[in-house]
Amino acid sequence: MTTHYFVPTTYHNVIGSLPPALRIADGDTIITQTLDAEGHDKDGIKQISGPNPMNGPIFVEGADPGDALKVEIVAMTPTRDTGFTRSVVAANVIDPEAVRDLPPREMTIWAIDRGALTVRLSEPASGLEGFVLPLAPMIGCFGVAPALGQAISTATSGEYGGNMDYRRFGPGTTVWFPVSAPGALFFLGDCHAVQGDGEIVGTGVETTFEVTVRLTVEKAARLVWPHGETADDILTIGNARPLDQALQHATTEMLNWLTSDYGLDKRAASHLLGQVVRYDIGNVFDPAYTIACRVAKKWLTKR
Amino acid sequence: MTTHYFVPTTYHNVIGSLPPALRIADGDTIITQTLDAEGHDKDGIKQISGPNPMNGPIFVEGADPGDALKVEIVAMTPTRDTGFTRSVVAANVIDPEAVRDLPPREMTIWAIDRGALTVRLSEPASGLEGFVLPLAPMIGCFGVAPALGQAISTATSGEYGGNMDYRRFGPGTTVWFPVSAPGALFFLGDCHAVQGDGEIVGTGVETTFEVTVRLTVEKAARLVWPHGETADDILTIGNARPLDQALQHATTEMLNWLTSDYGLDKRAASHLLGQVVRYDIGNVFDPAYTIACRVAKKWLTKR
Amino acid sequence: MTTHYFVPTTYHNVIGSLPPALRIADGDTIITQTLDAEGHDKDGIKQISGPNPMNGPIFVEGADPGDALKVEIVAMTPTRDTGFTRSVVAANVIDPEAVRDLPPREMTIWAIDRGALTVRLSEPASGLEGFVLPLAPMIGCFGVAPALGQAISTATSGEYGGNMDYRRFGPGTTVWFPVSAPGALFFLGDCHAVQGDGEIVGTGVETTFEVTVRLTVEKAARLVWPHGETADDILTIGNARPLDQALQHATTEMLNWLTSDYGLDKRAASHLLGQVVRYDIGNVFDPAYTIACRVAKKWLTKR
Amino acid sequence: MTTHYFVPTTYHNVIGSLPPALRIADGDTIITQTLDAEGHDKDGIKQISGPNPMNGPIFVEGADPGDALKVEIVAMTPTRDTGFTRSVVAANVIDPEAVRDLPPREMTIWAIDRGALTVRLSEPASGLEGFVLPLAPMIGCFGVAPALGQAISTATSGEYGGNMDYRRFGPGTTVWFPVSAPGALFFLGDCHAVQGDGEIVGTGVETTFEVTVRLTVEKAARLVWPHGETADDILTIGNARPLDQALQHATTEMLNWLTSDYGLDKRAASHLLGQVVRYDIGNVFDPAYTIACRVAKKWLTKR
Repeated sequence: MTTHYFVPTTYHNVIGSLPPALRIADGDTIITQTLDAEGHDKDGIKQISGPNPMNGPIFVEGADPGDALKVEIVAMTPTRDTGFTRSVVAANVIDPEAVRDLPPREMTIWAIDRGALTVRLSEPASGLEGFVLPLAPMIGCFGVAPALGQAISTATSGEYGGNMDYRRFGPGTTVWFPVSAPGALFFLGDCHAVQGDGEIVGTGVETTFEVTVRLTVEKAARLVWPHGETADDILTIGNARPLDQALQHATTEMLNWLTSDYGLDKRAASHLLGQVVRYDIGNVFDPAYTIACRVAKKWLTKR
Repeated sequence: MTTHYFVPTTYHNVIGSLPPALRIADGDTIITQTLDAEGHDKDGIKQISGPNPMNGPIFVEGADPGDALKVEIVAMTPTRDTGFTRSVVAANVIDPEAVRDLPPREMTIWAIDRGALTVRLSEPASGLEGFVLPLAPMIGCFGVAPALGQAISTATSGEYGGNMDYRRFGPGTTVWFPVSAPGALFFLGDCHAVQGDGEIVGTGVETTFEVTVRLTVEKAARLVWPHGETADDILTIGNARPLDQALQHATTEMLNWLTSDYGLDKRAASHLLGQVVRYDIGNVFDPAYTIACRVAKKWLTKR
Repeated sequence: MTTHYFVPTTYHNVIGSLPPALRIADGDTIITQTLDAEGHDKDGIKQISGPNPMNGPIFVEGADPGDALKVEIVAMTPTRDTGFTRSVVAANVIDPEAVRDLPPREMTIWAIDRGALTVRLSEPASGLEGFVLPLAPMIGCFGVAPALGQAISTATSGEYGGNMDYRRFGPGTTVWFPVSAPGALFFLGDCHAVQGDGEIVGTGVETTFEVTVRLTVEKAARLVWPHGETADDILTIGNARPLDQALQHATTEMLNWLTSDYGLDKRAASHLLGQVVRYDIGNVFDPAYTIACRVAKKWLTKR
Repeated sequence: MTTHYFVPTTYHNVIGSLPPALRIADGDTIITQTLDAEGHDKDGIKQISGPNPMNGPIFVEGADPGDALKVEIVAMTPTRDTGFTRSVVAANVIDPEAVRDLPPREMTIWAIDRGALTVRLSEPASGLEGFVLPLAPMIGCFGVAPALGQAISTATSGEYGGNMDYRRFGPGTTVWFPVSAPGALFFLGDCHAVQGDGEIVGTGVETTFEVTVRLTVEKAARLVWPHGETADDILTIGNARPLDQALQHATTEMLNWLTSDYGLDKRAASHLLGQVVRYDIGNVFDPAYTIACRVAKKWLTKR
């Protein structure tokens, strides 16, 4: 199994069936440097416009429609001392009439201390003088080419992954995407130094990273929506608006996963989910919202 | 400050401006025994039909419209060895076409071990032989009389509280409700031995409890939606459909709370929420869904 | 069958199980004068605060839970020369970020010509100099006491009717409400001189009316949501948020009506609805939105 | 100005920046034969799989991003004697728990009488013996290449048009799409012999047509969402889920259109819309729902 240091020559604002930038074997590892959400590199030079420029696509040998592409997020290292956010909550996350009283949305700069692994406002706001956050890296946007030869904006997401902006998609997490195109055609980019639930200011702390992922094909996996696994949990993702529909997708996928892989029928899976399920709101900002349906592994026995 | 052992003579399926069952002083403590969601008492005898029979209303001296009623959940002790759930996830939490394949919803009995403080299925389902949950008591439905003299079914919720079915409303949590009627008129009932996020089978483990709460008036509090505080967090509640609107209510309320009580302007509050907010889905089953917007107290300094 | 000229001594901001203001026989006719949405009478004198003060409740002899109350809207005559609207579209009907650019919402006065039966702005806005609308009276808010002894704000609506703000609820239309309380307890008020779909400025042209309705009991009708009939159509009402859920309620009710009363099974009813159904958006402003599912009578044969 | 008889050699399941199948001059007319939604031609031979195979793309000389492509639907002639529908309402348009009782969704054949211009079930269902509908042709799916080089499934829709399934998109209607790619790249297909509001069985009467459209470039038109004009009305389209968001898009676009082209400020436009707007539900079946915001031309004076 090979490790590829992948240096893109172009970036993409869509996830789709584009010509591969790299071909790798099943199980290979990729190290690559991502741009920030507006297309600046680690030196602050704009390489391309937004939204969310992607590195890729990476063609994984042996991946066919119906398979899953397993993506192990091995490491994420920030490559810049600054990130940016928008200064005000997005209009769609507060009561409509309250939008009238919002100040304008402006860009705000954050300082990333790559030694201390912390993130803070470059110019602390009044009342936030001591607001220093631990670095909590995550991939905002990644996935595989969607079905039908589609190419879809990196502003949004779907069954194929995309701009999910979910804070648990960081180092140590594994994600499975349903493969729809030969070679899977994997893309990634738009990494955040930290982000709250919902990405409610429309950004995390947007910056550049060196990301290490390992890509493996699982044959005939038959997932419809992305699956994930962290140290403690398994999870399924639903991407849609409104949140209600995202939750329906994620819950249906989890119910199917528990019945196919964990030896539970629908009643037993319902008993389990009813009392222990956890829902995370990935984003409520992008065109499609993201919900994760999460179950602690301690309750489960894989069959 | 007095402790009242409150034994209801009638129960209510609405929260509203009904004649007080008890009058107490500001700061008094109440101990009372609740029925389960279908109206059975600790001996399994049906006292009233559902939905969610309430103990109350309790008139708190000195509470006026515009105030907040502070409810400290001091203790919750189960009073029965059994609880019940519905056996299958609710139709509205999965993809519509997948509903065709759901088995029927039936009542399922759970055993509550009051010594070990655990909950398990009375007849373990295949694959769930070792599924033993720690008791995690919570109040499913509580609140104060809504505005305009309304009386609203305990199946649903609103600004006044109600059937929020949020798992963090357990012992150690404090909740503030916006007072709309003289005396606040506090109701409570519908307690659960444990419940996952969303109450997605339409129930937690429904059973009877002895509940101890302390009720205190805070004058001129001007909250619109319920506030809460746990050991680690402050939180605001939004109740509405779809989840998107519940989230808007909760986020607007938190933004207002941070600016009124925590010395942050809207930009600073946005910086904070954008990177550290957590959302919990209380319920996605009742007519109004519930979302909590939660912020860790470690990031906050009260002014 | 008697005609009652009903002069309320008090008005109500809720629809619920309040003491009857009038008792009538099954089939009697009521003539009554309504206040405007903010509680002014035909002389412009404020009698009560809003929202939507109701005349009633009227107890109809013989009406029991499970029955339907048939309400024939016989006549509506405006009783004042002015009405009012809000000057700007509501924040919730436009894109959230566009709300930042809305002017403030102010009260606007309209002139009602009771001879010519027209409505126009008292001070024409630039570009609307010739904007003269035909009077198109409708009842904004009416219905019967909801189940469980509830009393619900006239700002919203539900299975029992309420503030539906649907423009086809005018003279010549018949509406059936599901009875939940003995005597049905009928309320009405909040009439509009004219209104577009959705009530998107938050008002129609709000004014006072003399309204004539005939109230008849239909036994064991088993409707869940209101039914209606106009000269050309039958229709069912769904009240909920989001619009998607209101549409689900209205469509389910129509499907049930077609199968129970029109000799169609679900497949035949689906064939019919799929190709000829019409949906109207009653309101998208109130806490619960309203959708009507409408079918032309020319396609139907009552069994 | 030329008329092109366009015979595709391939069809597409996406709308996007594909190589043009035909290049035409600004103002030219196209006559072309469309497949049905599942890819059958007028002889019933399957040419390609679904969803909704498109004829195109047609490159229109002079069309640049920022322009509008004006599409006049000149004529639609059915080319086959049969169409098909699904036999049961879609699960997402009825109450979730009611889905359990739906019969299976099957294909149903309809007879199209091309002389009489009528449509009827091939095997009449009981109770629908006399159910004969006038032919009411419409284009289910058409539009231009979306921004960013995207290629999006013809199952859904967006700002660029797509699968809107709106019954007023028939002969005599003109539609304007916002151009995002050089040449606009126009696609069309998926025509229906008739369809109710909402496309609630998931289909209209799906069949093949000969369609005549005239394509004209309007420079610097700056629309965000599609515009339309019928004999009586102007209209704007919003495509999104839930319906609430589709309505927000359509209403915002209409508000902008009234202020840019009809001499009204936002207050005057609000006065107008508030009292005369009509909303149509295009579809509530596809991934993005469609709402039209419609205003009668009799109320408007173009500036």
